[in-house]
Amino acid sequence: MENEKKMKIVGLVGSLRKDSFNRILMAEAVKLCPAEAEIEILGIELPPFNQDRETDLPKEVKKFKEKIRSADAILIATAEYNYSIPGVLKNAIDWASRPYGDNSLEGKPVAVMSASIGMLGGARAQYHLRQVFVFLDMHPVNRPEVMVSFAAEKIQGGVLQDETTKEKVNELLQALIAWAKRLGNNKG
Amino acid sequence: MENEKKMKIVGLVGSLRKDSFNRILMAEAVKLCPAEAEIEILGIELPPFNQDRETDLPKEVKKFKEKIRSADAILIATAEYNYSIPGVLKNAIDWASRPYGDNSLEGKPVAVMSASIGMLGGARAQYHLRQVFVFLDMHPVNRPEVMVSFAAEKIQGGVLQDETTKEKVNELLQALIAWAKRLGNNKG
Amino acid sequence: MENEKKMKIVGLVGSLRKDSFNRILMAEAVKLCPAEAEIEILGIELPPFNQDRETDLPKEVKKFKEKIRSADAILIATAEYNYSIPGVLKNAIDWASRPYGDNSLEGKPVAVMSASIGMLGGARAQYHLRQVFVFLDMHPVNRPEVMVSFAAEKIQGGVLQDETTKEKVNELLQALIAWAKRLGNNKG
Amino acid sequence: MENEKKMKIVGLVGSLRKDSFNRILMAEAVKLCPAEAEIEILGIELPPFNQDRETDLPKEVKKFKEKIRSADAILIATAEYNYSIPGVLKNAIDWASRPYGDNSLEGKPVAVMSASIGMLGGARAQYHLRQVFVFLDMHPVNRPEVMVSFAAEKIQGGVLQDETTKEKVNELLQALIAWAKRLGNNKG
Repeated sequence: MENEKKMKIVGLVGSLRKDSFNRILMAEAVKLCPAEAEIEILGIELPPFNQDRETDLPKEVKKFKEKIRSADAILIATAEYNYSIPGVLKNAIDWASRPYGDNSLEGKPVAVMSASIGMLGGARAQYHLRQVFVFLDMHPVNRPEVMVSFAAEKIQGGVLQDETTKEKVNELLQALIAWAKRLGNNKG
Repeated sequence: MENEKKMKIVGLVGSLRKDSFNRILMAEAVKLCPAEAEIEILGIELPPFNQDRETDLPKEVKKFKEKIRSADAILIATAEYNYSIPGVLKNAIDWASRPYGDNSLEGKPVAVMSASIGMLGGARAQYHLRQVFVFLDMHPVNRPEVMVSFAAEKIQGGVLQDETTKEKVNELLQALIAWAKRLGNNKG
Repeated sequence: MENEKKMKIVGLVGSLRKDSFNRILMAEAVKLCPAEAEIEILGIELPPFNQDRETDLPKEVKKFKEKIRSADAILIATAEYNYSIPGVLKNAIDWASRPYGDNSLEGKPVAVMSASIGMLGGARAQYHLRQVFVFLDMHPVNRPEVMVSFAAEKIQGGVLQDETTKEKVNELLQALIAWAKRLGNNKG
Repeated sequence: MENEKKMKIVGLVGSLRKDSFNRILMAEAVKLCPAEAEIEILGIELPPFNQDRETDLPKEVKKFKEKIRSADAILIATAEYNYSIPGVLKNAIDWASRPYGDNSLEGKPVAVMSASIGMLGGARAQYHLRQVFVFLDMHPVNRPEVMVSFAAEKIQGGVLQDETTKEKVNELLQALIAWAKRLGNNKG
């Protein structure tokens, strides 16, 4: 990363719901992002991954992969569906990693946050993602773990209202930026 | 289950690839299925799950859920993508479980098999699925675990050639049928 | 299970601490246990498992295994250490399962509860235990999941004070007993 | 790490069995260790962890923690028991991480290898360890994953005979050393 350039963070929201807690969480991260970095949110609604199509990637997948490849770091805000990663987010990751030998996520520093209506705040989706990162050779931030429980109480009018959560999001961004710097160049 | 009726097993293949190892594995299961049961394979290529659409389910999702609801047991043959469940399969499961209170998979006995080109035979996808089953209140068969490693060597001309694997698939079907009987009625 | 006999549940507490939250949680379960069943708590402080000793099991291990073998069901109340199962509990399970072919836990219905000082209530230890149960061929109850978060606030004077948690423990016991009955004989 | 000093790697063997495959795997790592580093194997047979004793640590635990604290990196060779981490290894990790605020493993780069008699080569124990590392704030090497399947065929006369496995162990050591250098100072 050169001095004059901002660190580029790609943001992925693991839910297609319009008023998704995690979309709101990501919006908060965009607001809180330190000046030395910037977050660009990518849409994850891609066609269903089919290995037969991976030698001739759909146009939107190509774009998605280019954006990811050019990022210095990845930030994921994900829902938890059925105690795991939402299929739609996993599908986007599946595309991003293929074909073999052309994994756009390889080597990227990554941070995860999650929000859920229940007590565990998406924890289970996060641990499954961490296993996925091993294969992808990504480097996840360990701390803080941002798991926003009882999210419906912390979000009002489409905006995160909870100060403790805001601080955690801020800490996570700081940690991701510091981690990306510590690891050095992550673009290939 | 009455005497005169066959046990209905719904089969889900966790890969859209035409020549998928897991499609071939499922085809073998259909061949090997004991006379007291029958397997109906359902397509899993559904629209990307969006909670905003769950109160007015897409037509193909409704059909998918009806088929699942009427099943006595579920059989999954899945690929492993990035050390976890393929997004496209998880997406189908996400639809099948929603909206809240209308989980078509609830209470179903389930068996999983997987095939992969590598050494672990899809094991990691299976353990993630098992965690998903907890939320869905499904009852997975413990044994045998059918994890077909180095699948490319065991499949030729689009057909499973490996006798040991065939026996394992047969054992798994027997175990699933016995387990479904032991649990009793599983349709709601 | 004959009518005249009580269902025998063996209780394991995954912590050696004298004032352990999970010991208190188990004590509550003993109090709340329906009349048709009874819980016997076993100590888990066994020597470190060593495969070289498994052909001539230490006396206390033999006793431990006999008690487990004679149980109709298992109830575990466990702490979470370092996002997983406490070593000391896992060590007891390792003994209980060996030598090969003499797994005293095989086929047992099992329920898990956990309490922790933090937000997740031991969830991560529970999911690791569930993977262990697959190998052991145990049959875990799916619901309710009893994960007691912020346990220090819910326990006073060495006694569980939180009514919601008491109800959950009661539900879990009912579920375990019903599940054991549904599965039928589990002693061999 | 100063130029004139060797990188210090602490080795932990997750099995007490005298002829343990993993002890042999670790012995091979000692032999293969590049000149710039050295491996010191620590015994893991510690008393059962009891939080009541953590304010006055047993003498052998104090020593264990001091050795770990002074290490630049950690190498684990572990058996898999019941689809998870051996209790005896987890117990040693539990001691190493306590009391709260005095986690001797914090920030350490770590690599894991495992050997088993079966097909999966200890994979499941490795993924559970990876989750433990998140809490401990350790930084695991992603690749290569050294999972030695069918270990009985690859070890003869108490020595690893398989060339492919030796290469993998060597790669893992190189990766650990490079990773520790990339992360910089890891001693607190």
